[in-house]
Amino acid sequence: MHYDQIISDTVKSNNSKIVMLVMDGVGDIRSPKFHNKTPLEYANTPNLDRLASESSLGRCIPILPGITPGSGPGHLGLFGYDPLQVTIGRGVLEAVGIGFDLKNGDVAARCNFATMNEQGRITDRRAGRISTEITESLCKKLKSIHEIDGVEIIIEPGKGHRFVTVFRSKDKEIGALINDTDPLEEGKSPITAKGENPPSEFLAGVINKFVQLGYDLLKDEHPANAFLLRGIASKPKIPTMRDKYLLESAAIAAYPMYRGIASLLGMTLLPAADSIEGLFKTYLEYRHKYDFFFIHVKGTDQAGEDGDFDAKVSCIEKVDRALPILLEHTPDVLAITGDHSSPCAMRSHSWHPVPILIHGPFTGADDVAFFHENACNQGSLGFFESKYLMGLLLSNAKRLDKYGA
Amino acid sequence: MHYDQIISDTVKSNNSKIVMLVMDGVGDIRSPKFHNKTPLEYANTPNLDRLASESSLGRCIPILPGITPGSGPGHLGLFGYDPLQVTIGRGVLEAVGIGFDLKNGDVAARCNFATMNEQGRITDRRAGRISTEITESLCKKLKSIHEIDGVEIIIEPGKGHRFVTVFRSKDKEIGALINDTDPLEEGKSPITAKGENPPSEFLAGVINKFVQLGYDLLKDEHPANAFLLRGIASKPKIPTMRDKYLLESAAIAAYPMYRGIASLLGMTLLPAADSIEGLFKTYLEYRHKYDFFFIHVKGTDQAGEDGDFDAKVSCIEKVDRALPILLEHTPDVLAITGDHSSPCAMRSHSWHPVPILIHGPFTGADDVAFFHENACNQGSLGFFESKYLMGLLLSNAKRLDKYGA
Repeated sequence: MHYDQIISDTVKSNNSKIVMLVMDGVGDIRSPKFHNKTPLEYANTPNLDRLASESSLGRCIPILPGITPGSGPGHLGLFGYDPLQVTIGRGVLEAVGIGFDLKNGDVAARCNFATMNEQGRITDRRAGRISTEITESLCKKLKSIHEIDGVEIIIEPGKGHRFVTVFRSKDKEIGALINDTDPLEEGKSPITAKGENPPSEFLAGVINKFVQLGYDLLKDEHPANAFLLRGIASKPKIPTMRDKYLLESAAIAAYPMYRGIASLLGMTLLPAADSIEGLFKTYLEYRHKYDFFFIHVKGTDQAGEDGDFDAKVSCIEKVDRALPILLEHTPDVLAITGDHSSPCAMRSHSWHPVPILIHGPFTGADDVAFFHENACNQGSLGFFESKYLMGLLLSNAKRLDKYGA
Repeated sequence: MHYDQIISDTVKSNNSKIVMLVMDGVGDIRSPKFHNKTPLEYANTPNLDRLASESSLGRCIPILPGITPGSGPGHLGLFGYDPLQVTIGRGVLEAVGIGFDLKNGDVAARCNFATMNEQGRITDRRAGRISTEITESLCKKLKSIHEIDGVEIIIEPGKGHRFVTVFRSKDKEIGALINDTDPLEEGKSPITAKGENPPSEFLAGVINKFVQLGYDLLKDEHPANAFLLRGIASKPKIPTMRDKYLLESAAIAAYPMYRGIASLLGMTLLPAADSIEGLFKTYLEYRHKYDFFFIHVKGTDQAGEDGDFDAKVSCIEKVDRALPILLEHTPDVLAITGDHSSPCAMRSHSWHPVPILIHGPFTGADDVAFFHENACNQGSLGFFESKYLMGLLLSNAKRLDKYGA
């Protein structure tokens, strides 16, 4: 019997509302560069602290000790998809992130417009970071390529110099075990696509023809006279949140990647404002329509990756000030955590356990009246892998029966 | 290398005595309904607190985070049988619980006397909760059915309206993948037994004949003119505590289910008084005869399930007052914990980690002088799955060699 099987055997439905507020990269470490306090410690957070005093606290280990997750595995863990078992290719994330409705069997690639010299070498892997508008007009040109060897080619522009290509085949199986064409270093030629098995070999052939045709269409453009494919991946076959948990789920997230992950898990994508107040107001507006809400705050991670301690503190304080909106109709179970830590002193994602707070009628209360890393070390949730969080939320919402007699 | 394999490769015998005192369902949560303290916090427990100051403390996770265990999985975990791997059917628990000596291959069912109307519909699934005496006399009637299709039928009365039927076959294999005959709702007819594979189909046929013959024998009885079979299960093949740990083990438990589990694991069932002093005195009396003692206190769980905070506090205080009896000859290693939490505010089992205390010559001491949930959060044992407890007890008893050179 596996954990997933226990959940699936014991899960039941009721009218409870669960909210998971993910402050991306919120976890941090004390550093002498930044007052020897973490942003959560340094920030003025009366609302979070009061909530902490009525909640159970702990630390989430995103993957396993010492493993730094990307945003994909970080979020998969939070939603109870074992990030060691379930993987989502980057191309797929990008495609669903711009709202593309991937079908089973589709293969998606993240693409960058790039600059190539007369020797066929890439001189700028991002084509001088051309604007979204230019990318849109170049994509229109590429869209004249509809089909190669019976495989439909679908081009969708993204932000800046980025676009997505989706390969869709009706008759013939296509595979995604294909290398990036991006040489990663400037001064090198794009890499020829190669497949690792017959369906991937077939698609690699299609991709190489697509590259040739596309470069021909762009040859008089400047600076974007080429493009590179990365993260070629098939849409994964994963159960939705409804399948796994009997939850009607919705995502309130402004950024493409998180909307993409949510949509792959079957969440409805709700309108997401840029402001934190706006995110919380969306919850209030839709709270009767769904069982589970994923609310994503991006600013904490951005600040961490920029090494901008003050910006991280400020984002945390904004969340704290907006919290009363969310608590106007307190969800039955509320979790506040992050998908990983992004310490300012590291300017990157990290492996450090993330503070977690669960508030609900059966969480009890710990001897802790602050929401920050060291306070959470003392909590009654202990240290646990993120993949167990959904089980805890379902239990707290009385949505799990007991296991065994 | 699996954990079980390490234990089996490194375990050795010595003269140490290990006592595991299980306060069933002792874990709890703070609730405003009950003084914002858990029963362990609220209770006056000078002996437990003094012991805590000389022990290592932590929190046991019965199964995995968020999973609420039944008593079976809860206890299996404490004895080091992975509750995700080892399962004991309810019929088997009931049979061994009333002291029935199940043989390999036996299939057991929990049975209820019930009331059926003239249309063959069940009008009371518990036959008005008839007395144990009436159940005993009705079982005598049913005992006239000795054998059906070569399968021996053994009837044993239980408490109240309950009895156990054991099916034993000498020649032909019998299976237990058979549905309950209990329709679960009143106003419905008993369900015909069906087997999921040939040996179970065969026994299902036997069961249907047994039901017919039995109902004929009871047709003039009132209110118990029918019976229902539930939890049909085979005796599981699991190693004993002697096999796994080289421990001669004994159980001091008054309640059938816990005696049942202990007996399936090869423990000797010692006489168990109703009072907690009595349980501890039994330990004193038999302490030279066994290596390992499982002492089971039921009152904490009962009080939790009743939502009776004062009764839970009182039971904890009784354990505390009786503790000096146990400590008259302090075992080499003493563990005090529960099989799960049963918060008064929930009136049911729960997933919350259980306080654990291990006392012995090599446990050291933590910065904690209380035995309760929040104190245990600070302990040196951390949060760990119950299935690792036996390893900790064996190590503390110097019964495990090191792993690897």
